[in-house]
Amino acid sequence: MNPKVLILMGSDSDFEVMSEARKALDELGVPSELHVSSAHRTPERTARYAREAAGRGIEVVICGAGAAAHLAGVVAAETELPVLGVPLAASDLSGLDALLATAMMPGGVPVGTLGIGKAGAKNAGLFAARIIARADAAVGERVRAQREKMAREVEAKDAALQERLAGKK
Amino acid sequence: MNPKVLILMGSDSDFEVMSEARKALDELGVPSELHVSSAHRTPERTARYAREAAGRGIEVVICGAGAAAHLAGVVAAETELPVLGVPLAASDLSGLDALLATAMMPGGVPVGTLGIGKAGAKNAGLFAARIIARADAAVGERVRAQREKMAREVEAKDAALQERLAGKK
Amino acid sequence: MNPKVLILMGSDSDFEVMSEARKALDELGVPSELHVSSAHRTPERTARYAREAAGRGIEVVICGAGAAAHLAGVVAAETELPVLGVPLAASDLSGLDALLATAMMPGGVPVGTLGIGKAGAKNAGLFAARIIARADAAVGERVRAQREKMAREVEAKDAALQERLAGKK
Amino acid sequence: MNPKVLILMGSDSDFEVMSEARKALDELGVPSELHVSSAHRTPERTARYAREAAGRGIEVVICGAGAAAHLAGVVAAETELPVLGVPLAASDLSGLDALLATAMMPGGVPVGTLGIGKAGAKNAGLFAARIIARADAAVGERVRAQREKMAREVEAKDAALQERLAGKK
Amino acid sequence: MNPKVLILMGSDSDFEVMSEARKALDELGVPSELHVSSAHRTPERTARYAREAAGRGIEVVICGAGAAAHLAGVVAAETELPVLGVPLAASDLSGLDALLATAMMPGGVPVGTLGIGKAGAKNAGLFAARIIARADAAVGERVRAQREKMAREVEAKDAALQERLAGKK
Amino acid sequence: MNPKVLILMGSDSDFEVMSEARKALDELGVPSELHVSSAHRTPERTARYAREAAGRGIEVVICGAGAAAHLAGVVAAETELPVLGVPLAASDLSGLDALLATAMMPGGVPVGTLGIGKAGAKNAGLFAARIIARADAAVGERVRAQREKMAREVEAKDAALQERLAGKK
Amino acid sequence: MNPKVLILMGSDSDFEVMSEARKALDELGVPSELHVSSAHRTPERTARYAREAAGRGIEVVICGAGAAAHLAGVVAAETELPVLGVPLAASDLSGLDALLATAMMPGGVPVGTLGIGKAGAKNAGLFAARIIARADAAVGERVRAQREKMAREVEAKDAALQERLAGKK
Amino acid sequence: MNPKVLILMGSDSDFEVMSEARKALDELGVPSELHVSSAHRTPERTARYAREAAGRGIEVVICGAGAAAHLAGVVAAETELPVLGVPLAASDLSGLDALLATAMMPGGVPVGTLGIGKAGAKNAGLFAARIIARADAAVGERVRAQREKMAREVEAKDAALQERLAGKK
Repeated sequence: MNPKVLILMGSDSDFEVMSEARKALDELGVPSELHVSSAHRTPERTARYAREAAGRGIEVVICGAGAAAHLAGVVAAETELPVLGVPLAASDLSGLDALLATAMMPGGVPVGTLGIGKAGAKNAGLFAARIIARADAAVGERVRAQREKMAREVEAKDAALQERLAGKK
Repeated sequence: MNPKVLILMGSDSDFEVMSEARKALDELGVPSELHVSSAHRTPERTARYAREAAGRGIEVVICGAGAAAHLAGVVAAETELPVLGVPLAASDLSGLDALLATAMMPGGVPVGTLGIGKAGAKNAGLFAARIIARADAAVGERVRAQREKMAREVEAKDAALQERLAGKK
Repeated sequence: MNPKVLILMGSDSDFEVMSEARKALDELGVPSELHVSSAHRTPERTARYAREAAGRGIEVVICGAGAAAHLAGVVAAETELPVLGVPLAASDLSGLDALLATAMMPGGVPVGTLGIGKAGAKNAGLFAARIIARADAAVGERVRAQREKMAREVEAKDAALQERLAGKK
Repeated sequence: MNPKVLILMGSDSDFEVMSEARKALDELGVPSELHVSSAHRTPERTARYAREAAGRGIEVVICGAGAAAHLAGVVAAETELPVLGVPLAASDLSGLDALLATAMMPGGVPVGTLGIGKAGAKNAGLFAARIIARADAAVGERVRAQREKMAREVEAKDAALQERLAGKK
Repeated sequence: MNPKVLILMGSDSDFEVMSEARKALDELGVPSELHVSSAHRTPERTARYAREAAGRGIEVVICGAGAAAHLAGVVAAETELPVLGVPLAASDLSGLDALLATAMMPGGVPVGTLGIGKAGAKNAGLFAARIIARADAAVGERVRAQREKMAREVEAKDAALQERLAGKK
Repeated sequence: MNPKVLILMGSDSDFEVMSEARKALDELGVPSELHVSSAHRTPERTARYAREAAGRGIEVVICGAGAAAHLAGVVAAETELPVLGVPLAASDLSGLDALLATAMMPGGVPVGTLGIGKAGAKNAGLFAARIIARADAAVGERVRAQREKMAREVEAKDAALQERLAGKK
Repeated sequence: MNPKVLILMGSDSDFEVMSEARKALDELGVPSELHVSSAHRTPERTARYAREAAGRGIEVVICGAGAAAHLAGVVAAETELPVLGVPLAASDLSGLDALLATAMMPGGVPVGTLGIGKAGAKNAGLFAARIIARADAAVGERVRAQREKMAREVEAKDAALQERLAGKK
Repeated sequence: MNPKVLILMGSDSDFEVMSEARKALDELGVPSELHVSSAHRTPERTARYAREAAGRGIEVVICGAGAAAHLAGVVAAETELPVLGVPLAASDLSGLDALLATAMMPGGVPVGTLGIGKAGAKNAGLFAARIIARADAAVGERVRAQREKMAREVEAKDAALQERLAGKK
């Protein structure tokens, strides 16, 4: 099955965090591919991924990078696809640098920025699925199911907590 | 023509900034509607907008809010549509509060966050159009044209600058 | 005995920190209940807790949440009770995100924000007790006693330190 | 009528902002008094206000201060009443200093902190009224009415916006 | 020998860090005393220490506190002695809160603020000795010797490094 | 009369702010001198001022500088006198840069840092006077008087406010 | 004369600030050229400028950009020349975003970052001249002269201040 | 071979981080020397290193320091050579203090600032090599080779990742 989402990360040390995006897409039945490509170390390779994505059937690009995180911005400059950015906590500044470098894009070149780290990577996958669900009812159905499951899990956790608290007394 | 993008803002004082989103959508031929609805002052109204959006043919929701900006998060919690958040500089903290309150969502409930203020509002419009272009080739064509026009404008500005600098000597 | 304080937390991983609020209330003889309910994952459940609290005899609601911490704001929007917010350090930003997302509420919907983490959770319990003491002299008496005990503990710690320093010489 | 809320501010230059607290209380029919008293310039006077408040029938103390804003903390150390802190933007740091100095209290001495500036001052008034409403049904009724009026205002503003947008076309 | 410097700390958990101040004073032959006294938990005790210091022959007061660190400000409000503040990293905010709460004092009530943590505590001791050296030539002589020793240590460390680097080749 | 306090500022554009230090010293009868000398533009001149200060009868040095504010640190490295640093808001970062560059000195070379801007400059003057008062009873008397006057002014301002509020009704 | 320094800026609205770099180079007799080219709006044009710079005799590239300032990083990725970055205060975050996005580059792709705004732009010009002076003794001579002139100006300003202060008395 | 780059660090505890600069220079065949010299503890020694560098054939100075990191600024004030600053995370503030104290230099005295910590130290070495390559073609050749190797490494890492992902399925 052709990948619908291209996940790029600036370094292979980002693999564990960015796998959250992939996992979220897998669970929603959205095929994706994941590549290492750096805005700074391999600018041409990154531009090529960005320019060729639409032609290969990619619908959304997710970019994860830390520090002066330019990956999402650089990709957004080279494609008409929606580009999501995941700021990573890869420097001493705990991801605040990556958040600002990803989110504060100039008018004209949009990046949809998620939160820092694993929660952001997971949400990037979910957001991509929400986009794809615009034209794919089956994915839409799974997004709905994921949300309901998530709500039920909160309820189950509260029930477990109540038991635990009751047992304590 | 039915609106495809719903723009919500927490206060009517956000109108000038959030109009940038509307203008960007107008220029790309994407019909939108714009409403005042507050996460805190009118929670039920906001939840209703969020829940009914998909049924009314809305494809993307854009939320602009300042300070402890909960609007985008609250809407994302109530819809399966992609939700974009625009942090506004509405308190003494210059929008840093709104940026963090919009972007740092917990895993499971994604918000695609744009930059603070007018550039972010414009980019929210452009991002929404990029989503809609997934299934609407005419919008895709206009997104491409917008990008080319933007590039030409930079070149024209540089040409004007070179003339000005040459004249100076 | 009917609970007077409702403690909500966005995730069961917040249990250890938010137990400080519960413990403080227990020590002051104020009955409380503690539930997991998320502003984002279970918005309706959260709204229901907020709306029904006053009718069930709850006097104060305490909400603990991290990152883009909307829980207290969302609850304050749905109840007339005083709502206290405890920002938790649940993201890479050490709770600064949660502090701003909790404290910087727009005019009209107040949240009384405590400090980040365990000290804040404990203080939320003490603050709730101070509110309840307005109409319950026994609780007021215990608040007074807690303050005196706290002062005596500082004095005892200093006395122990003086001994230790004297012994050193 | 005896004041129920004592509003203290560190400097008379805080008057305009802190009047928002007073106005909010006036509108809800809660009598208040407003004094200048500094944690640093008049420590004894401030301690006296704090210690005597409960005996004079005060139910809540609101403290507004900027920069290294110690006023609320100092008052909370000397009274058993609930103390609300309003951080003011009185230095070059836009109130971030005052927010941290007010909110990050050590465990044992709670301050309920509102947002920076006018919105925070107004919310301090509303929060104080929510406390007083615990034992005063008339105030509770007015709090409810204020919330409904606030919601209606949002709706009216949206209606005006829709007219304006329709007229534009 | 009568103590010349009074060191106060808000909690006995600050002992390890604040001992750096004491050690620095010991090495320069300046007698000091060290007490636990909290601005918030024991306000009267703290005010008493501050008010009585000058009469007991104290020349400088050093205050170490974390989070919403009011100790130095509260002491400066109650004494005419020079007051030094050491911000401690005692909350999730790494001491930034304590730095702002200590340094940003309003005009009229000065606190001389040192850096966060151990370096700051040591420097508070050295600064106090520099003050005392104004009227005590023996202390002045030891301050001079400390500075020369410190310079020699840097030179010795560099010499050791050069050997190590030369050996490596 | 020989100056007792040397005030240095990095640029003559700092004159208005740093005059607050001078004014405070004038009012307390402490003679001072004020010079422009930059840590970066005139390093030797600055080192000379620092090294010669003690020999000329200077008791305290006050340094005001903005941005990467090194002036106080550089002076503290070259003198045994107590050095006070006033961070100035001279860049786009509102003085936060200057505050950190002044306060976060390494162990061994102390700088007593005051708040940002005019309040800090005034307090530097007052702090210097508190140091000089250690050995000069007349200055000590004036420091005491200044504190009492300051307290009376707060009381007078409150009295004026009460009149104004009473008149309003 | 062939330009030795290429100055790029992301937008023509940066002209006033970036002219400071040009002016500094003019005064030191270093020929430069100044172009508008955006990392995001004209990525290919920017890459072309970067790739062709060395071949055209350029020795240093200076890049000025605001917000998520990627220009310097993108250029450094495409050239072997030294690249200097000037962060501009072009968003609500006062240039902190641009500073982090410019300075926090990943290992392997260096950018030499100057301060925010005009002082940074001027320093970028001076730094470029210091590089060029490595191989051009005439420029080196002018750098030395500029430094001496700068020192003399500080002395002249202090002399003027002393006159002014003396006249005041 | 005479060293071309002088690396200074404020403390021998910075050795591990600053070795990254040395290693990068070694790999590019640029001889360097590394010394401990503190702006604050050994100001004269530091000034001497700075003043004598050019005469000894040094082409670039790299300075690594933490906290109120003045080393690079102090050196830049005393030499006409290009000075690079590496901010180190040596205090509780994670290097943000050092970044601001290094980068925000006043107009007239440039420092080229790299990122915080190891990545910054490595980049300082690479940047120095890029400067030296202006007049040394062999170094230029090695800089080019380093960039190509870096790009190939990214490609190799991606290839390894693809194998790993393929194997997983």
